[in-house]
Amino acid sequence: MPRPLRVTIWNEFIHELEHESVRRLYPDGMHAVLAGAIQRQLGDAVQIRVVTLDQPEHGLTYEVLAETDVLTWWGHAAHDRVEEEIVTRVQHRVWEGMGLVALHSAHNSKIFKRLMGTTCMLRWREAAERERVWIVDPSHPIVEGIADEYFEIEQSEMYGEHFDIPPPDELFAISWFEGGEVFRSGCTWRRGKGKIVYFSPGHETFPIYHNPSVQRIIANAVHWAAPSGGLYLGQGRNISKPLSPIAAEHVMDESLHRSK
Amino acid sequence: MPRPLRVTIWNEFIHELEHESVRRLYPDGMHAVLAGAIQRQLGDAVQIRVVTLDQPEHGLTYEVLAETDVLTWWGHAAHDRVEEEIVTRVQHRVWEGMGLVALHSAHNSKIFKRLMGTTCMLRWREAAERERVWIVDPSHPIVEGIADEYFEIEQSEMYGEHFDIPPPDELFAISWFEGGEVFRSGCTWRRGKGKIVYFSPGHETFPIYHNPSVQRIIANAVHWAAPSGGLYLGQGRNISKPLSPIAAEHVMDESLHRSK
Amino acid sequence: MPRPLRVTIWNEFIHELEHESVRRLYPDGMHAVLAGAIQRQLGDAVQIRVVTLDQPEHGLTYEVLAETDVLTWWGHAAHDRVEEEIVTRVQHRVWEGMGLVALHSAHNSKIFKRLMGTTCMLRWREAAERERVWIVDPSHPIVEGIADEYFEIEQSEMYGEHFDIPPPDELFAISWFEGGEVFRSGCTWRRGKGKIVYFSPGHETFPIYHNPSVQRIIANAVHWAAPSGGLYLGQGRNISKPLSPIAAEHVMDESLHRSK
Amino acid sequence: MPRPLRVTIWNEFIHELEHESVRRLYPDGMHAVLAGAIQRQLGDAVQIRVVTLDQPEHGLTYEVLAETDVLTWWGHAAHDRVEEEIVTRVQHRVWEGMGLVALHSAHNSKIFKRLMGTTCMLRWREAAERERVWIVDPSHPIVEGIADEYFEIEQSEMYGEHFDIPPPDELFAISWFEGGEVFRSGCTWRRGKGKIVYFSPGHETFPIYHNPSVQRIIANAVHWAAPSGGLYLGQGRNISKPLSPIAAEHVMDESLHRSK
Repeated sequence: MPRPLRVTIWNEFIHELEHESVRRLYPDGMHAVLAGAIQRQLGDAVQIRVVTLDQPEHGLTYEVLAETDVLTWWGHAAHDRVEEEIVTRVQHRVWEGMGLVALHSAHNSKIFKRLMGTTCMLRWREAAERERVWIVDPSHPIVEGIADEYFEIEQSEMYGEHFDIPPPDELFAISWFEGGEVFRSGCTWRRGKGKIVYFSPGHETFPIYHNPSVQRIIANAVHWAAPSGGLYLGQGRNISKPLSPIAAEHVMDESLHRSK
Repeated sequence: MPRPLRVTIWNEFIHELEHESVRRLYPDGMHAVLAGAIQRQLGDAVQIRVVTLDQPEHGLTYEVLAETDVLTWWGHAAHDRVEEEIVTRVQHRVWEGMGLVALHSAHNSKIFKRLMGTTCMLRWREAAERERVWIVDPSHPIVEGIADEYFEIEQSEMYGEHFDIPPPDELFAISWFEGGEVFRSGCTWRRGKGKIVYFSPGHETFPIYHNPSVQRIIANAVHWAAPSGGLYLGQGRNISKPLSPIAAEHVMDESLHRSK
Repeated sequence: MPRPLRVTIWNEFIHELEHESVRRLYPDGMHAVLAGAIQRQLGDAVQIRVVTLDQPEHGLTYEVLAETDVLTWWGHAAHDRVEEEIVTRVQHRVWEGMGLVALHSAHNSKIFKRLMGTTCMLRWREAAERERVWIVDPSHPIVEGIADEYFEIEQSEMYGEHFDIPPPDELFAISWFEGGEVFRSGCTWRRGKGKIVYFSPGHETFPIYHNPSVQRIIANAVHWAAPSGGLYLGQGRNISKPLSPIAAEHVMDESLHRSK
Repeated sequence: MPRPLRVTIWNEFIHELEHESVRRLYPDGMHAVLAGAIQRQLGDAVQIRVVTLDQPEHGLTYEVLAETDVLTWWGHAAHDRVEEEIVTRVQHRVWEGMGLVALHSAHNSKIFKRLMGTTCMLRWREAAERERVWIVDPSHPIVEGIADEYFEIEQSEMYGEHFDIPPPDELFAISWFEGGEVFRSGCTWRRGKGKIVYFSPGHETFPIYHNPSVQRIIANAVHWAAPSGGLYLGQGRNISKPLSPIAAEHVMDESLHRSK
C-alpha cells in the first residue's frame, strides 16, 4: 500500500477570530472545513495537518515542509505579515516537487505572486451575486465528479478579468458573474517539479467552502498536485565530460565562469 | 509614419574589459555587435541605446526605462551586482508592456528568474562543440528569414536540459549539441503586458553574435516583443457598481477588505 | 515597399439573399461589410477579394488560393454543401502558411473542424441577449486598439461552453452572456505553417459586423494571421546521409519502408 | 476496488509475419511485448486485449471500442489499409473520452492525423544510431520512474524536426540523435474528452520495445490517458431557456437555423 499523501492546510486564520460573520460560517476555522472535505473525498489516501499564520515560522518549519506533499493556501488580510524567508522556503519546496493549491484571495499571496512572476491583480466586487462555474476542460482529473456543464454558487464575491497571471498551462474552469464579469477561475501551472493549482471560488463571509462541488474540486486538485518521483534539477550542472565524442579540443578559461 | 521602436541594449560589459580573448571577438563590447545587427535588420524602424552595469543605476533610470519599448539583456559574471531595486523597476516596466529579450547566460539573471518564478538552472559545458539549432515552429515571426530547417554554430557552449523554466508559451527552437545534449534554445512567454523571449545561442569567447542567423533571430525577437497599446491592469480594481443588475442586496463589511 | 497582404473573404452568402431580415442589415452581403472594415483598418497594406459558395469551386480555385495570404470564412446554413475536395485544398494551403480567420458559425464549418480534429460543438441560444467581450490577453496584437477591459454587444446570439475545441495556443477573449453562459470567444492555433484565429462575435440577424470593436479585432486577426516566409515541411524527408558522424554501420532493409 | 483499466493494444502485425529480422526480436508480435510491459507495470489495475489489422473491422468493433478505456496504436506499412469508417469510429471514441497512445510510426496513422489536423510529417533515417531521450518535464506523471535526466537507446531510427504537429499541450521528452537531429519525442494533447500521447521511441528491427525505460513510459502513458468521468459534450445544444434572466424579447427565426 502506498504512503498516504501528506497534505498541509495553511490558513491565515484571522477573520474567523475577529469577525462574528465569518465565525458563524466557519466556527472552527476555514481550515477545518477544508480538512474535512479533503478527508471525506480522499479518505485513507491522505493525512492532513493544519497550520496557521500565528504559529512560529507560520507553522511552516523546514520539518513540516519536508513532510508535506501538497500545501493548500488561504490568506487575505495579512499577506504582508508572511515573512519573506518563509516564502522563499515554500518556493524552494514547490521547485522540489511539493504541490501548491492556492485558494481564492491567495491570488494576492506572496508565494503565489513569486511563482507566477506577475502582479496577479484582478477586478473584484463583494455584492453577494450569483457565480456560475463553467467547466471548460471536462476531461481534466481536477473536475472529475462534476456531473454537469457548470455548477452554481448562489452568493459569491466577484473576481473578474483581466486577471494578470501568466497564461495557464491548463484552464479547467471559467466563472460567469451576475454583475457582468468573467474569470479564469480554475488554472494550473508547473514550476520546477511542483504542480500549482489556482481555484477562485471560496470566501470568508459566504459559505462557499461548504459547497459540495467546490469541495470536490479542491480535493481533486490536492490529488492532482501530488509530487511525482525523480530528480530535482534546480542547480546548474557543469558537465565537463561529454556524453558523446566532441571533435574540438578546447580548454575552458575558468576565470570567465567563476560566478556561475 | 509610426514612431521608431526604442530598443535599449543592456550589457554587463565586464568580460570585454577584463579578458583579451573576449576583446578580440568583441572589441567594442558585445553590445556594439548586437546594436549593429539589430540596426542593420530593422533600419529606421528602430532607435537603439546602449547601457551597461557600471553606469549609475546600471543605466536603467526611470527615464531610460520609460523611453524603452524593448530591452535586451546580456549578463554573466555579475548577476549578483544588479541591485534588487533596479530589478523590481525593470519587472514593473515589463508588466506595463516593455518587451524583454534575454540572451544566453541571462537565463541566470535576476530579472529573468523573477519573471519566470523558477530557478532557470541547466546543464552546461564549454568545450567548443558544434551546436545545431533546429526550428520547431517554422511559422513563428521570430524565425522569419531562416531559410533551412536548422542552422549551425561551429563552436558553442553547451546549455542542456533539464532547463528549469515554466513551460514556454511558444517554443520556436531546440538545439542539438555534439556532446550529447538537447536544449529548448528559443522560447517565449507573456508576463503582464510584456512579451519575453529567451534565446540561448551566444557567448563571450565564441563569435556567436557574429553569426548571421543568430543576428537575424535576435532582431526578429526585438521586433516581436514590441509592446501593444491598451490598458495596464496591474492593480486590483474594486468595481462596486456592477455592469449588469444583481438581484441580491448586500452591504460589504469594509473591515474585512482593508488590506486589499 | 512590401507587397500588400492578399485577403480573400469567403462568404456562404445565402441568408442575405433569402431573408429580408438579414438583407436589411447587410444589403450587399456580410462580405461587403467585412471587406470594408478590413480595408479601412489596414488600408494599402491589404488587397481584398470576395468569393462565395455558389461560384465554381466555391470561388476557391487553386489559382485563387495560391494568391491568398489570409482567408476569412463565414458559413452557417450550408456547411454540408462545401465539397470535401475543396476543404482538402484549403487545408493544404493552411499547412503551407495561409492564415485562416474563422468567424462565428464557422465553428461548424468543415475546414475548421478538419484543422481542429474535434467536434467544435457548443451551447447556443438566439435571444438577443447582451454579450460582453472581455480581453484576457491585453498584450496580444489581435486586441490592439481595444481601449477598455471589455466591449459590449447589445444584442447577440449566445455561444457557450463547453466549446469542444483543442485547448487554444492563445486565448485572447472570453465572452459573458446575459443569459448565464461564458465562451472562449477569441482563440488562436497553429497548424503546419498556417495561423488560425477563431472569433465568435458576429451574426446574420444582429448588426454585429457593424460594431467598431468587432471590426477592429477582425482586421487585427487578418494582419496577425499573415504568413511568415520559410520552408514548407509537410512531407516526410528521408535523410540517409547524417549531419554528424554515426558510429554504427547499418544497411536499411528497404522492404520494410516501402509505404513510408 | 475500482474497475481495472481496459486497455486495447492495436498492432498492424505485418512486419512480424513477413520479416525474419522483425520476428527474431518480436517472435509473438510487438503487441505481446507491449502487453507484457504494461501488465508488469500496472498489474491488476489493467485488463489487456490485443487486436490486429487483419481481424474483421481491424478488431475495432463497436463492442470492443465500447469496452476500451485506452487504445495503443502501432502501424507502419499499411496505414492506408485502415478503413476510413473505422478511423471515424475510433475518433468518436476518443472524443467521448477513450485515451490514445500513438507509438513511433503511428505518427503517420490516419487516426493520429485526423486528431491532429496536420500532416504529422518529419525527417527520418534508419542508421542504427544512438538516441538519447531527455526528460524536459520531470514532474509529469508519464516520466515517473525515470531516474536520470535522460536515458539511452543504443540503436534507433532517427525521427527529426521539423515534426509537423500542433504545438503539444505538454512536452515531456526531447530526443537527441547521434547523426545530428532533435525530436519532440514525448507529447500530449486533449481532443474532446480524450487524452492523447505520442511517444516516438520504438521500432520493428531494433529491440526498443524491450528497453525498460521505454516500457515504463508507455505503461505510464496508458495510465495517464485513462478517461475521467463526466458528460460528453460533442453535440450542439440549443438552450432556448436561459439560466439567468434576459431583458430583450426576441423570437428566433427558425428558418435561419435549420441546418444547425
